[in-house]
Amino acid sequence: VTADRSPTTLDPDDWEALAAVGHRALDDAMELLEGVAEGPVWRVPPAEVQRALTAPVPRTGTSLEAVYDDVRRLILANPHGNIHPRFWGWVNGTGTPVGVLGDMLAAAVNPNVGGGNTVPALVEQQVIDWMKALMGFPPGASGLLGTGGSMANFIGIASGVYAKAEVDLRDAGIAGAPRRMMVYASSQVHSSVDRAVRLLGLGAQSLRRIPVDEEFRIDTAALRLAIEEDRSAGRHPAVIVGTAGTVNTGAFDDVEGLADLATVEDLWLHVDGAFGAMARLAPEVRALTTGVDRADSLAFDLHKWLYVPYDAGCVLVRDPDAHRLPFDVTPPYLAPLTGGISAGTWFSNYGIELSRGFRALKVWMSLRVHGTDAYAAAIAANVAQARYLAERIAAQADLELLAPVPLNIVCFRYRPSGLSDEAADPLNRGLLIRLQEEGTALPSHTLVHGRFAIRVAITNHRSRYPDFDLLVERVIQLGREIASSERSTVAS
Amino acid sequence: VTADRSPTTLDPDDWEALAAVGHRALDDAMELLEGVAEGPVWRVPPAEVQRALTAPVPRTGTSLEAVYDDVRRLILANPHGNIHPRFWGWVNGTGTPVGVLGDMLAAAVNPNVGGGNTVPALVEQQVIDWMKALMGFPPGASGLLGTGGSMANFIGIASGVYAKAEVDLRDAGIAGAPRRMMVYASSQVHSSVDRAVRLLGLGAQSLRRIPVDEEFRIDTAALRLAIEEDRSAGRHPAVIVGTAGTVNTGAFDDVEGLADLATVEDLWLHVDGAFGAMARLAPEVRALTTGVDRADSLAFDLHKWLYVPYDAGCVLVRDPDAHRLPFDVTPPYLAPLTGGISAGTWFSNYGIELSRGFRALKVWMSLRVHGTDAYAAAIAANVAQARYLAERIAAQADLELLAPVPLNIVCFRYRPSGLSDEAADPLNRGLLIRLQEEGTALPSHTLVHGRFAIRVAITNHRSRYPDFDLLVERVIQLGREIASSERSTVAS
Repeated sequence: VTADRSPTTLDPDDWEALAAVGHRALDDAMELLEGVAEGPVWRVPPAEVQRALTAPVPRTGTSLEAVYDDVRRLILANPHGNIHPRFWGWVNGTGTPVGVLGDMLAAAVNPNVGGGNTVPALVEQQVIDWMKALMGFPPGASGLLGTGGSMANFIGIASGVYAKAEVDLRDAGIAGAPRRMMVYASSQVHSSVDRAVRLLGLGAQSLRRIPVDEEFRIDTAALRLAIEEDRSAGRHPAVIVGTAGTVNTGAFDDVEGLADLATVEDLWLHVDGAFGAMARLAPEVRALTTGVDRADSLAFDLHKWLYVPYDAGCVLVRDPDAHRLPFDVTPPYLAPLTGGISAGTWFSNYGIELSRGFRALKVWMSLRVHGTDAYAAAIAANVAQARYLAERIAAQADLELLAPVPLNIVCFRYRPSGLSDEAADPLNRGLLIRLQEEGTALPSHTLVHGRFAIRVAITNHRSRYPDFDLLVERVIQLGREIASSERSTVAS
Repeated sequence: VTADRSPTTLDPDDWEALAAVGHRALDDAMELLEGVAEGPVWRVPPAEVQRALTAPVPRTGTSLEAVYDDVRRLILANPHGNIHPRFWGWVNGTGTPVGVLGDMLAAAVNPNVGGGNTVPALVEQQVIDWMKALMGFPPGASGLLGTGGSMANFIGIASGVYAKAEVDLRDAGIAGAPRRMMVYASSQVHSSVDRAVRLLGLGAQSLRRIPVDEEFRIDTAALRLAIEEDRSAGRHPAVIVGTAGTVNTGAFDDVEGLADLATVEDLWLHVDGAFGAMARLAPEVRALTTGVDRADSLAFDLHKWLYVPYDAGCVLVRDPDAHRLPFDVTPPYLAPLTGGISAGTWFSNYGIELSRGFRALKVWMSLRVHGTDAYAAAIAANVAQARYLAERIAAQADLELLAPVPLNIVCFRYRPSGLSDEAADPLNRGLLIRLQEEGTALPSHTLVHGRFAIRVAITNHRSRYPDFDLLVERVIQLGREIASSERSTVAS
């Protein structure tokens, strides 16, 4: 084979030497994951690492061995943190060792899963079919894997807007619609929905935010009134976005009620189930997702509560024609022939991307190796841990729970008696920064009723109960230290 | 460590056993790549493989060993084909072994590169800075890695539309613009531009296709007239999309001329350089890209002519504020604090995705290991191969070259004297299907001046000169066989 190589190939002269580095890298990767609990969750990138990452683009190559040493020193030694059992920031999933093998193999096979009659495309189709089954969507629905919930929300909302339009939006654009099209969502809806409504050319004026009840669920009666009001004012109610698991507190809208309303009012129902949709897998919390299977489109991530490595999300759309409508373009160079490689499914007609990586493989391998029962158990464990944490917080005089905990998100703060709201905000901001920078645990933050909250979102199959005990203890310690140093500063 | 695991973790009980499968998989992956030339380029997915890929979602798990055996049998044995030296379909890059290691390590570290003060984010920033240097963009420009050229085009065009709008599109939407905003591109522009203009809510009516000259380059004088005409008619000329390497034939618009026109007329210049922008790396063809460094935004793929595994693309935008304008949303749960992990760059404000995989690592490792000189050589070799193929075709009486070959794309057909255009189309369609299905070589197809063309696009670092000889010989053989069997069918 070697004699026959292209003289300018990027393949190695010595495959065994390259593989040897690969085997070292694989061992190091597994060692990193097996021992991850021993180190800090995250640390500020050290100055020498930052410096090393400003070198100019190299004209000449460096040996793979030397480059890999840099990868170890700079990157493996400084992960983002979400592989650690005490990372609970935003809603970042943990990843799995099986997923690592999946992504390695995907890069080797290296298909463009944009379309065609290929086995990688069949694997993606099977994964989509599995997702339909898990979410209660009919076999005739369509779907697509993508980078995550943001893109899945974009696709679902686009499909709804185009399907409900009174003109052919593909030709005339939003300016051609006789009435302003309206999208409805709760005040707690994820920011990717704001971005999607904006980018589709509707603008923020087309997104109407409906108030929530005390459990952060959309007020369906207020939504009904808003729809009526918009109709009376000459606007065009088109899409309802329900949320199955809000990013702030894990609240579930009454999706069943939204589905009834959408049916009566002839609106499209899109559901953002970024992490919450996966609660369907766990009998303990499945009831929260009631009605999700009635959505016209459903968005969810696989790198969150299916724990596959970044990135992987999924959108399902009940009506494949509606799904295609905003996206399909078939120029001559993409028109399928009656045979050969082009005679297959063209996923590129169901989303923005024409070139599409083989993210289906890690999902396929993960589901086959673990089975859905293992996911159900891991998800249920995360929910139980959130409840445990909420109870621990409620039992501490100096801590305050800031929102109900329906699923896997706990919002709280350090607030001993006598500390005002105004003083609690900066204290808890400083506390969280210290907690993160010392590497003990990594919650993120949000505002709940306008107040700064330490926010723990558990989509982590490595978390253990003692990790939450440690969090509670350390937050109280840090809170007392900060409060006392502030008192002494004031006194001095 | 083991005693301390979460009882529901998806980590293995036995890390060594998992790693053993990983080592096997790595060896198999390298063997696949090293020996890929020996097998067919692609084959129709066998019926038993198709059947195996319709099993329902598994509730219980299967051993990794058994699942991996299925991966080998079903998937490694049936790749998409673009890793093979004789795959020249669409513009699919080859991938590299170094990229395989990069994606494995990225999945292990598993960061969400949406944002924050993390080393993976610094790696992506360095890769973006490298891309600015390679493309002649100023250090102060912004950029983003993403899934590919389609998304990069979407981002660049969105930035242009929002920057040039007469109202705040974020609020009012496209319907709020007082005049129809117009986007200009040649008739040869890539379909992802059609899709982007549509999805931004402008609609096809806002995309004006300008004729091309005999070398498939935009007619800049016709473009100037179209802009004047639109202004007179009360429309709002906003964005010019130039193409550096058209998908059909590899033609380059006069980007320098477009930049002059855009400056004079106050339009945004976006350049789609999906593969062609990389010609800047090779001195032999660098002149074709003149003016690309003057674009307001530039889109290009890294999985095409930088040969990294799928998926990876890049957009650069000269003005970071314009880049952010369509995309940024900062809800309380994403607002950076003054320290801790959130106090870094938020790439999510520069594109659709909030969750973002670590595709920067494979690019970083590849550029460091190979250096840009090696890419320059591989790119130049592909260009030389395209010229060689064009000469071979021109020298064959029964073959016809259908378009000039400025770069790496060759459009041709089998057309012996006496074969009409009407008869040549179905004959060449059938020929291409047979060529693909027998696995000899994998060009794709297009239309050139309305006629079916066999299209060879070379972004393949494994291709060797004899591969093109084989293509020419086999196309002539197949053409003769088909023509003769058609004559005998007619005769019988």
